[in-house]
Amino acid sequence: MYSGEEQTARVQFTLMQYDEKEFQEKDFHDPEECLSAIARDKVTWINVDGIHNTELIQRIGEKFGIHSLTLEDIVNTEQRPKFEEYETYLVSIMKMISYTGEIHSEQLSVVLFDNNTVVSFQEADGGDAFDIIRTRLRTGKGRVRKMGADYLAYCLIDAVVDYYFLALEKIGDRIESLEEELVHNPTKGTMQLLHSMKREMIFLRKAVWPMRELINNFERCESRLIKKTTRLFLRDLYDHTIRVIDTVETFRDLLSGMMDIYLSSVSNRMNEVMKVLTIISTIFIPVTFIAGVYGMNFKYMPELESPYGYWITWGVMLTIMITLIFYFKRKKWL
Amino acid sequence: MYSGEEQTARVQFTLMQYDEKEFQEKDFHDPEECLSAIARDKVTWINVDGIHNTELIQRIGEKFGIHSLTLEDIVNTEQRPKFEEYETYLVSIMKMISYTGEIHSEQLSVVLFDNNTVVSFQEADGGDAFDIIRTRLRTGKGRVRKMGADYLAYCLIDAVVDYYFLALEKIGDRIESLEEELVHNPTKGTMQLLHSMKREMIFLRKAVWPMRELINNFERCESRLIKKTTRLFLRDLYDHTIRVIDTVETFRDLLSGMMDIYLSSVSNRMNEVMKVLTIISTIFIPVTFIAGVYGMNFKYMPELESPYGYWITWGVMLTIMITLIFYFKRKKWL
Amino acid sequence: MYSGEEQTARVQFTLMQYDEKEFQEKDFHDPEECLSAIARDKVTWINVDGIHNTELIQRIGEKFGIHSLTLEDIVNTEQRPKFEEYETYLVSIMKMISYTGEIHSEQLSVVLFDNNTVVSFQEADGGDAFDIIRTRLRTGKGRVRKMGADYLAYCLIDAVVDYYFLALEKIGDRIESLEEELVHNPTKGTMQLLHSMKREMIFLRKAVWPMRELINNFERCESRLIKKTTRLFLRDLYDHTIRVIDTVETFRDLLSGMMDIYLSSVSNRMNEVMKVLTIISTIFIPVTFIAGVYGMNFKYMPELESPYGYWITWGVMLTIMITLIFYFKRKKWL
Amino acid sequence: MYSGEEQTARVQFTLMQYDEKEFQEKDFHDPEECLSAIARDKVTWINVDGIHNTELIQRIGEKFGIHSLTLEDIVNTEQRPKFEEYETYLVSIMKMISYTGEIHSEQLSVVLFDNNTVVSFQEADGGDAFDIIRTRLRTGKGRVRKMGADYLAYCLIDAVVDYYFLALEKIGDRIESLEEELVHNPTKGTMQLLHSMKREMIFLRKAVWPMRELINNFERCESRLIKKTTRLFLRDLYDHTIRVIDTVETFRDLLSGMMDIYLSSVSNRMNEVMKVLTIISTIFIPVTFIAGVYGMNFKYMPELESPYGYWITWGVMLTIMITLIFYFKRKKWL
Amino acid sequence: MYSGEEQTARVQFTLMQYDEKEFQEKDFHDPEECLSAIARDKVTWINVDGIHNTELIQRIGEKFGIHSLTLEDIVNTEQRPKFEEYETYLVSIMKMISYTGEIHSEQLSVVLFDNNTVVSFQEADGGDAFDIIRTRLRTGKGRVRKMGADYLAYCLIDAVVDYYFLALEKIGDRIESLEEELVHNPTKGTMQLLHSMKREMIFLRKAVWPMRELINNFERCESRLIKKTTRLFLRDLYDHTIRVIDTVETFRDLLSGMMDIYLSSVSNRMNEVMKVLTIISTIFIPVTFIAGVYGMNFKYMPELESPYGYWITWGVMLTIMITLIFYFKRKKWL
Repeated sequence: MYSGEEQTARVQFTLMQYDEKEFQEKDFHDPEECLSAIARDKVTWINVDGIHNTELIQRIGEKFGIHSLTLEDIVNTEQRPKFEEYETYLVSIMKMISYTGEIHSEQLSVVLFDNNTVVSFQEADGGDAFDIIRTRLRTGKGRVRKMGADYLAYCLIDAVVDYYFLALEKIGDRIESLEEELVHNPTKGTMQLLHSMKREMIFLRKAVWPMRELINNFERCESRLIKKTTRLFLRDLYDHTIRVIDTVETFRDLLSGMMDIYLSSVSNRMNEVMKVLTIISTIFIPVTFIAGVYGMNFKYMPELESPYGYWITWGVMLTIMITLIFYFKRKKWL
Repeated sequence: MYSGEEQTARVQFTLMQYDEKEFQEKDFHDPEECLSAIARDKVTWINVDGIHNTELIQRIGEKFGIHSLTLEDIVNTEQRPKFEEYETYLVSIMKMISYTGEIHSEQLSVVLFDNNTVVSFQEADGGDAFDIIRTRLRTGKGRVRKMGADYLAYCLIDAVVDYYFLALEKIGDRIESLEEELVHNPTKGTMQLLHSMKREMIFLRKAVWPMRELINNFERCESRLIKKTTRLFLRDLYDHTIRVIDTVETFRDLLSGMMDIYLSSVSNRMNEVMKVLTIISTIFIPVTFIAGVYGMNFKYMPELESPYGYWITWGVMLTIMITLIFYFKRKKWL
Repeated sequence: MYSGEEQTARVQFTLMQYDEKEFQEKDFHDPEECLSAIARDKVTWINVDGIHNTELIQRIGEKFGIHSLTLEDIVNTEQRPKFEEYETYLVSIMKMISYTGEIHSEQLSVVLFDNNTVVSFQEADGGDAFDIIRTRLRTGKGRVRKMGADYLAYCLIDAVVDYYFLALEKIGDRIESLEEELVHNPTKGTMQLLHSMKREMIFLRKAVWPMRELINNFERCESRLIKKTTRLFLRDLYDHTIRVIDTVETFRDLLSGMMDIYLSSVSNRMNEVMKVLTIISTIFIPVTFIAGVYGMNFKYMPELESPYGYWITWGVMLTIMITLIFYFKRKKWL
Repeated sequence: MYSGEEQTARVQFTLMQYDEKEFQEKDFHDPEECLSAIARDKVTWINVDGIHNTELIQRIGEKFGIHSLTLEDIVNTEQRPKFEEYETYLVSIMKMISYTGEIHSEQLSVVLFDNNTVVSFQEADGGDAFDIIRTRLRTGKGRVRKMGADYLAYCLIDAVVDYYFLALEKIGDRIESLEEELVHNPTKGTMQLLHSMKREMIFLRKAVWPMRELINNFERCESRLIKKTTRLFLRDLYDHTIRVIDTVETFRDLLSGMMDIYLSSVSNRMNEVMKVLTIISTIFIPVTFIAGVYGMNFKYMPELESPYGYWITWGVMLTIMITLIFYFKRKKWL
Repeated sequence: MYSGEEQTARVQFTLMQYDEKEFQEKDFHDPEECLSAIARDKVTWINVDGIHNTELIQRIGEKFGIHSLTLEDIVNTEQRPKFEEYETYLVSIMKMISYTGEIHSEQLSVVLFDNNTVVSFQEADGGDAFDIIRTRLRTGKGRVRKMGADYLAYCLIDAVVDYYFLALEKIGDRIESLEEELVHNPTKGTMQLLHSMKREMIFLRKAVWPMRELINNFERCESRLIKKTTRLFLRDLYDHTIRVIDTVETFRDLLSGMMDIYLSSVSNRMNEVMKVLTIISTIFIPVTFIAGVYGMNFKYMPELESPYGYWITWGVMLTIMITLIFYFKRKKWL
């Protein structure tokens, strides 16, 4: 059922437990061991790295009473972002996006249980995005240690959305430099780059648009798992998602406009090529004809006998050429 | 009333009956025989292959109390996918899509009755799609033997949607190879292929978009025929359909973008042709003129008498040619 | 108030009365005569041919208690299709479409009264579309004789929608042949044909889209004039209308795509013309220059004296020409 | 606050009062005089010509208890069409459109009070549009004298919408003649005309789309000022507005299509020009080369000595030319 | 958390307090000082210039009980315009737009508290926009001194929307002059200007569209902080926002149409260039060939011997040239 690239890394369970005063952290490789280490009176976060091992995922899923459909969604990396409410838990499935020349996407699932527990599933360690949360948990800075599991779930999703901003910033820089290139030195490769960036925008849209619905449903769901104070934060997160979507749409509009620029600059260059051809041809074709006329071998051609014929002919030819050059100047072709 | 291609194959009724413990399977060619073989305390699935025989369809329809409008929809292969709720049954009419170079579509109707019975209608045997369900029924693997007729109906529709993914994967590969071709070797045929793929996308959209509404209505209908556990699966299936639609729309966007690439590569090639013409013309037209001048037959042309005239002329001509070549180099036309 | 083309034909009132057992049919030219012939215990259908005679329409309208606004709509052939509910009657105004090379449209109004009466208004005899209903009424085949006036109204609208399918089929054939022409032999006329078909699609959309709302409102209106069994048929008719709309939209998409093909085939032909010009010019311009050089009349040109000069020159010229031909072959221009 | 062009004309108040039996009409230049002439038991219509005099407008506004925001909207000629409900009155602000080569727009505000009074505000005398209403009021023809102030307000708005149809008809004729021009004799000016008509459509849309909402809100507002019989007329007027919008959208679609025709006809002409160039060049370049060859001055050129050389050369040149002409014929370039 | 450009200016708090009779105004640099100066029985407006000093913002926020999420939004200059309702205050975050060749945008936040207090936050002094309000407050002209804090909040937002109109007017002038340039003298720079104006429209849309929702939510929110009389003004402001949006959309449409004009004028110029080339080439190529023929050196060329050969040849060549000129005249290429 796992649909991502094949993976061999060992699955790792990271258990974090905390309340306002205490904080514990431990790594496990066996789900049962991890579960038995849970102390029930604290907020618990279990982060699972390695969703390719569907057998382990199923075992931990059963312990927590996760529906088999949810488990399928968690390990199916083609899954569309969505939020679902079950009786004992709420699940949010998202794409974590990073951008390093091209878009890299990873599936992240956050399950919030009614016993103050959050379980997050991902393939590789989404370390960078979650590091700030871990640091806050360890040091006790910020609000997170004072709040419940619902706030922790919010923090994880918030970290994902913040990562979108990072990726979009890099893409924005890329678009700007592409725009520069387009205006000053467009090549066939520019066009292909443009197309591949459009593709990436199509991909991003697919990842980002459902986030809006996800967070909206999260905020509005009537589950008692989410406290009122957390809902305020989710409302704020919703606005962030709208901003992400706005930016993606803006990028799409910009890329479409750049397409037009590209085509018009191709037309312009064609025009320039045509002008050079036309100017050279138009200047030399008439005078070449005149030279041809006096290259004829007729017996009786009075001009040929004249001592000034040659110079007069040159004069005529130069007059024609200069006249044409003036004509092109006036037409602003030169 | 049957609107598909003419068919001569004999209609076949396949009766499957099962509960958690037992499973029976039998083929019939006569509807009455088939119906009399039904044992009422089990889940019953009758698969009808051959909707071209409207007379037989009408006979079986009357036995089951299917409304004449529903029967018309079942045999009208131009029917739009839809879900309808009648008092004693729920009917889902869909398109089963397969892709082998071109899209092949077949109409499938699934009728769920209130006596734990499902009747499915199709023209040819949609064997491949349903084989997995049949195998599960025969072997008792998976959930299907433990659940009711509503779950069976879900399984049939799910098989159809899974087939969409298969078709879309093949189409995706095709688009990718077309994209490759477009960039490296676009021909007039590429354009026509692009157009025919666009047509196919138009067709697919027409088949896929109504599926969304269909499954949504199925899940939300207040009929007691659908149990709550099955509704969860239908909600999941709804998400799959959204993914199918997303993919179709993505393909449409990609094909539109490829159109632009095609047109721009046509422009680029035109540019290249023009450049060759311009370069050759521009280099040779001026020097041909000079040659023409000294081909004139004037009696008094002092240059002709000079012993170095010929070589000086060659020098001038070569200078012009080389200057122009440098000019084109600087303009990056060479 | 009548806004169609001027008409001189006499207005004809066709009265049909029936129940399950009996059927009567009679033509009148005087509305009062027609009305006095109505027997109250049967289903009554009065078909009025000739809405240009507004005075007669007004007289019959007053007898039936039709609101003056409705009468205006009936005779205004520019009317948009719509459904309206009045206290004593329901009125549906539609466009009947037929296609014979170009679209021919005629306005049809169907008024359903609460005394089991249907009055239909049209300009010319929409005979072909209604003939099947008349035949069924006369022969008693099908359901229509067993049902009430609401079912008759449904049948009339259904006949209109069926006529759309006929027209769309013809248009579909036309589009297909146009597509063929576009690929194999596009001319300036093809472009104009494309444009005029687009115009027709714009017209069709205007006629067809409101039908959806019309039938939806008809089905959903809470009037007691429509029985529950008829509503099922209206729901089915609604689906047919959606299919008509789908097809019109598909045709629009196809025509847009064909526009692209046309433009790209124009570009391709231009490319071909340019290539021929470039090849011929590029091959002959350099060698013509060489010929020009040895046509110069300088006294001291050593090559001219050489006995092999002519043949060597030919050799050089042929070499250049063959080299260029190979170059174009490699570039796939030949 | 008045935002239209400067005006110097004196403001005129036209007071009309009527019931089914009587009708009075009088012009005033002073608002207080006008108001004191009102007899309370009749329907009253005060038409104010000249909204540039904001001071007078404010005085009359205060007498009638019009909110200062409404007064601002009435004199602000940039106002978007809208309907608003206040406690003692309903106000509709519209654009009156006329078309004489270009679109001329004027703002009209109709205020319906709860004391059977309508006050209409406009800059110039919208005489033509309202003349038919005035005539009906004076002669007592039609319904208007029998109905209340709400029906009068409806009549005024209806007159505005009818004027839209007049303008659209003229624009439609213009588009048709432009289409003709485009096909048979497209010039650079045609393109600019097309663009300016597109601009006009953008303007028209802005004026027409809000009318739909305006009339819808008018019909649906729960004010007791509007009687049920008048609502029927408003519903009909709503349909007219939809038709106006439909027509504007159709014109937009047509103009877009004409843009495509223009571009394709430009391409076609370019093709034609290219063909002429290619044909002439291709026919003469090879034979000019041959002539060049035998114009060379080599000492040993055996062909030159042959008595038939000249004629054979002519033969070869003619053969080449004819062959090429046939080639172009076969390619359908000639 | 502050995301705008770095700022060093000192934060300034401007306190204004007023009722119908009195008005006080004072500047502070310390928030606590400012707060202690507030007299509770008057309407209070504190304008904060300098949101880059997040520490000061946080201090004042805490005094007023502003939620930390709101504070984050106030200092994050990338914030999307939005309205939010908290228990003790309403917050509106907007973009103030000014146009001086390019769009300059600044974030403005208006917080309305339940103790008759408005606090506005901005980076630089949005002086010009608010000056009119300050003048009215100081002089007591207009309504503002007679109304409460909710009306003041309305006035601030209204000033922002009025500034949009100013900016749009300038942009409209720019578009008009660009249109002129496009028709009479299009250059490569015009295209880039067009593109950059499109970018600005994309930016403006992002700022303007959410304003609609903002003001709608403001008007419709059920908070007791907004009095009924103020709601009327907000409804009017909503209409203004719709007009702003309409104008932005109109500009977008115009710019798209100008793109088409640009491309068609590029095509037209290409056509013109091609025509000149074709005319010159076509006229001279055939006659050059004839000259070439009689430049051949065959021994036996009877025409060369004829005393009239030369003149006859000239006659033929001139005939060809004149014929071709007539041909081009007829084709309207000249």
